[in-house]
Amino acid sequence: MPPDVFLLPPFFDYGATLCWAVSGALVGARRGYDLVGVFILALVSSTGGGLLRDGLFLQEGTPLLLRTPEYLSLVGFATACVMIFGKRLTSLPGFQRIVVLFDALGLGAYAVVGMNLSLVKGLNIPAAMLVGMVNATGGGILRSAISGREPHLFRPGKFEAVAALVGCGVYMTLRQGLATSPTVAAWITIAVVFVVRMGSVVYGVSTSAVNSFKDEWGQDRPLP
Amino acid sequence: MPPDVFLLPPFFDYGATLCWAVSGALVGARRGYDLVGVFILALVSSTGGGLLRDGLFLQEGTPLLLRTPEYLSLVGFATACVMIFGKRLTSLPGFQRIVVLFDALGLGAYAVVGMNLSLVKGLNIPAAMLVGMVNATGGGILRSAISGREPHLFRPGKFEAVAALVGCGVYMTLRQGLATSPTVAAWITIAVVFVVRMGSVVYGVSTSAVNSFKDEWGQDRPLP
Amino acid sequence: MPPDVFLLPPFFDYGATLCWAVSGALVGARRGYDLVGVFILALVSSTGGGLLRDGLFLQEGTPLLLRTPEYLSLVGFATACVMIFGKRLTSLPGFQRIVVLFDALGLGAYAVVGMNLSLVKGLNIPAAMLVGMVNATGGGILRSAISGREPHLFRPGKFEAVAALVGCGVYMTLRQGLATSPTVAAWITIAVVFVVRMGSVVYGVSTSAVNSFKDEWGQDRPLP
Repeated sequence: MPPDVFLLPPFFDYGATLCWAVSGALVGARRGYDLVGVFILALVSSTGGGLLRDGLFLQEGTPLLLRTPEYLSLVGFATACVMIFGKRLTSLPGFQRIVVLFDALGLGAYAVVGMNLSLVKGLNIPAAMLVGMVNATGGGILRSAISGREPHLFRPGKFEAVAALVGCGVYMTLRQGLATSPTVAAWITIAVVFVVRMGSVVYGVSTSAVNSFKDEWGQDRPLP
Repeated sequence: MPPDVFLLPPFFDYGATLCWAVSGALVGARRGYDLVGVFILALVSSTGGGLLRDGLFLQEGTPLLLRTPEYLSLVGFATACVMIFGKRLTSLPGFQRIVVLFDALGLGAYAVVGMNLSLVKGLNIPAAMLVGMVNATGGGILRSAISGREPHLFRPGKFEAVAALVGCGVYMTLRQGLATSPTVAAWITIAVVFVVRMGSVVYGVSTSAVNSFKDEWGQDRPLP
Repeated sequence: MPPDVFLLPPFFDYGATLCWAVSGALVGARRGYDLVGVFILALVSSTGGGLLRDGLFLQEGTPLLLRTPEYLSLVGFATACVMIFGKRLTSLPGFQRIVVLFDALGLGAYAVVGMNLSLVKGLNIPAAMLVGMVNATGGGILRSAISGREPHLFRPGKFEAVAALVGCGVYMTLRQGLATSPTVAAWITIAVVFVVRMGSVVYGVSTSAVNSFKDEWGQDRPLP
């Protein structure tokens, strides 16, 4: 392993994957999906960003999702938990808080993983930032797209993609500008994304719509 | 060709592809699509699962869809049939029965093709089962996703993905547990999936929703 | 570089990319998206066809989008323009005309780029035409799919995919039938697509729905 590769500690990686899988499974259950639908939503929510990163962008052979059985096992476990415990799961003391915290940690962590893999591969800075964003937010977008819904991420709301974007900027500045080691840069970035995300949630700061257009231009032009 | 590769007999492969292409084209025609829309729906319905398998999951160069002209020709032929014969096609004696039967045969067949390719590539068992499921059901999911609709596969209904899942379990047990030859395991799996699928259709057995949630948790959280 | 590779002149490539990015960003702004949503729509509209071509179909390593920073910079610039100038952008004299013209030029140009790369890779003629169509129209389809909408391209409308399809036929006839040089065939194709597309817009010629079905067949069959 080259010295500039940053690996998430397994408990962190698996914790975030499990948390995102449970979130996805709960969304599927609330929509009235059956076993298969709930599993697919859990799978895409937790591993979709990495699948897009590996399968569509970096293209270095079989995606990580398929190389080890851990991720699929975690998704299966999350699906089983939601099927068996259902609503009782969400009323566990501290459950929602844990999900929100792990979610905010995972956001920065997967952005870092995507950027780090891209830099190792020799991609330029904007490309590495794009891959980081895809890794962090692609699962949520794919989950909406695959079920025929508009991703909430596109609309004004609490900082989420914006938090990831700030983190991408911080990581690139640390790595390329200040030559910080991958591990130090990673943890600083994860902390910054966590603070921005949780600050937005706690203090209710939101993004705003870019503009309101009233003209009809572009309304129904199916541009390629 | 290594001895553990299972190949569908061409007439079977092409028959299932044609049947799925006609189904997809008919869905497009019923929605009022034009030539291009009908062709795209036929293409995605019949070859989308294999395209996801090759392009996103297995990543072994150009997808099979592009390597030979047969699949695209079949999709073109299906589109032309639907354009020329339209409703008369669906009122041919036995037409619907043939489509339902070929559909149920294809479901198991493509699950086997996906799993077999994955095992040849050395993937672990859960990963091979996932690729088998994607190969068997990915076209239908992609068809919905590409046209902004929620896949019916996610909702409770007749056994379809569940039939494919049972087949994946049977195939893996035969191959890995009982060391059955690829060809024997394939045909047993195809038969099992066919029986489960048709049994569900004939006897009206359906999956059920995982749970009904009434709390608002996760309602509009765009988790990554 | 092999002699049969056709490269778009950079000003043409970047002009079409910028134009499609601005169109996509404007669609996002009109829908009320925030910064991230507008950027993603601009990105997918302008580079989605090439990303599908490289990432899903041709599979020759990292997609072009990530190999050079130009495309991402153009998308960022387009997003910034729409954020800063908003509606005033669309009321610039000649703005809409320029967008329509560049759009019609890009349609043929990207079809040619996709077909040319496919022929260099040794794909058969139908496969190369499919890749050309994906390259030309995939961004628009992906933009709709990613935001949970049905692509307008599927419905009857002005010639767009049809214009690209005519261009694919012309290019293949010139290259494979008449052994025309890649560059000459490319410019003839771009001109033909431009004329067909603009003729359809100016004279109001549209495609028609394939058929109207009144039976319930296929209505809600989630075929794989």
